[in-house]
Amino acid sequence: MRIKTLTVVGVGLLGGSVALAARRRGLPEHIVGIDQSPALLERVLRGGLIDEGSLDLADGVREADLVVFCTPVDRIAEQVLAAADACRPDTLLTDVGSTKEGIVRQVEALLPGHVLFVGSHPLAGSEKSGPENASAGLFKDRLVVITPTERTPAGSVNRVTAFWLDLGARVRLMSPEEHDRAVALTSHLPHLLAAALAGILPAELVELTATGFRDTTRLAAGDPHLWQAILLANREALLAALERLGGQVDRFREALLQGDGPALEQLLLQGKAIRETLSR
Amino acid sequence: MRIKTLTVVGVGLLGGSVALAARRRGLPEHIVGIDQSPALLERVLRGGLIDEGSLDLADGVREADLVVFCTPVDRIAEQVLAAADACRPDTLLTDVGSTKEGIVRQVEALLPGHVLFVGSHPLAGSEKSGPENASAGLFKDRLVVITPTERTPAGSVNRVTAFWLDLGARVRLMSPEEHDRAVALTSHLPHLLAAALAGILPAELVELTATGFRDTTRLAAGDPHLWQAILLANREALLAALERLGGQVDRFREALLQGDGPALEQLLLQGKAIRETLSR
Repeated sequence: MRIKTLTVVGVGLLGGSVALAARRRGLPEHIVGIDQSPALLERVLRGGLIDEGSLDLADGVREADLVVFCTPVDRIAEQVLAAADACRPDTLLTDVGSTKEGIVRQVEALLPGHVLFVGSHPLAGSEKSGPENASAGLFKDRLVVITPTERTPAGSVNRVTAFWLDLGARVRLMSPEEHDRAVALTSHLPHLLAAALAGILPAELVELTATGFRDTTRLAAGDPHLWQAILLANREALLAALERLGGQVDRFREALLQGDGPALEQLLLQGKAIRETLSR
Repeated sequence: MRIKTLTVVGVGLLGGSVALAARRRGLPEHIVGIDQSPALLERVLRGGLIDEGSLDLADGVREADLVVFCTPVDRIAEQVLAAADACRPDTLLTDVGSTKEGIVRQVEALLPGHVLFVGSHPLAGSEKSGPENASAGLFKDRLVVITPTERTPAGSVNRVTAFWLDLGARVRLMSPEEHDRAVALTSHLPHLLAAALAGILPAELVELTATGFRDTTRLAAGDPHLWQAILLANREALLAALERLGGQVDRFREALLQGDGPALEQLLLQGKAIRETLSR
């Protein structure tokens, strides 16, 4: 896929990594970064992540063939719609938001006809943030879920797919709703649990934690402002996932109350068997 | 502390690491390993972890100055009591079990007067098992909780403390009950949660998991048979910890139901703030 100008909106960990990965693959001739922080734009310009910085959405997307929105999930839809009018015909817009239904349906309802939008979600990230932690290899061999709807032209899906494949990712198509139900269980529920578990640790027990507690709560180090928006945007699916987990925890509780070792072992075996099917 | 003969009962990950660490520090002249598996004893003898293997508890402890029990928590008390009669006067017995109240109180009630017992719990381990994964550095800079009671002679506590310090660990004294309440929250609850979360992942969503799900569920890879005994042995404290977590999860649920972003962010901030106090 030929891209002359790539515009990245929001140059944090993900936006910076999109820029670095695209540059390394020699994809765009020109990379524009849009951000609300002049100091950050200055830094990433000096660091060579982008060729041009802009504080203004319309200015920054004017020449773009492809615009990737890497801003918080509760800002993406309005920004896509605000940028669209300034875009040239056939400009392709996508995003990296962790939730898809709300964004895709809002954009789809109001997007002007001369541009194209397809939602994306790279299953890659870090509890760290900021362009200093960006990496050209962040998407390598990671799965990117692309979420077309019944109204998305096949050509747009192909262009977005080609872009992510070029960055080294694998790609899978899902509907926005199917995507949100899946990540409620695989990403948002683990995040909530990690934060809840970390949140109840009394200060005097910190010394008693070891690698197990650290690993189980790693996700709690994520940015609370970004994550409240993600959890809220997917709250129905997340509440359903929480319900499902509650059922399994109740089985553990019952086995403990009954002193039923074989039942406990069976529940632990079930978790181990599934854990071992996960790739490294 | 001078040890001529160290006997390790159960030569798995922990027992093997005790042997390797003691050897590296040049502590004992002679290391005896006791295990129920002749093939395993053969392997660890050949590997140089131990100098002598025994299938028989009484035979293996006869010459020991120090015996460290590294067997499953539901076997330790009976084995300590079974070994005690064969021990020489003043032999010091300890263990590495993840729960302490049941073991310590059972042993204390029935231990013959010519030997000494103090419970230990090194907060070190791995989801891996077996002597192949043992490491001389497993205890380095890790905390070992030593759990004397009001009946434990100070001299025994000092000897056990010196042993763990020699292996590179840090040491903290707690009562068995205080220890069990603490690890219910810092270790057993994370284990239960990891297993419950892994256990509800449908096969078709495995591809949708990333590092977050992997880290949060790492503990689920632990040995189900060993862990059912640990969870059962500490079930009252674990049920209380589960109750405490349930309260925090309810706060998340309520914030989600109300669509209350600031409340969600506050809960996430609480988790992040505590998470960041954990040492690396």
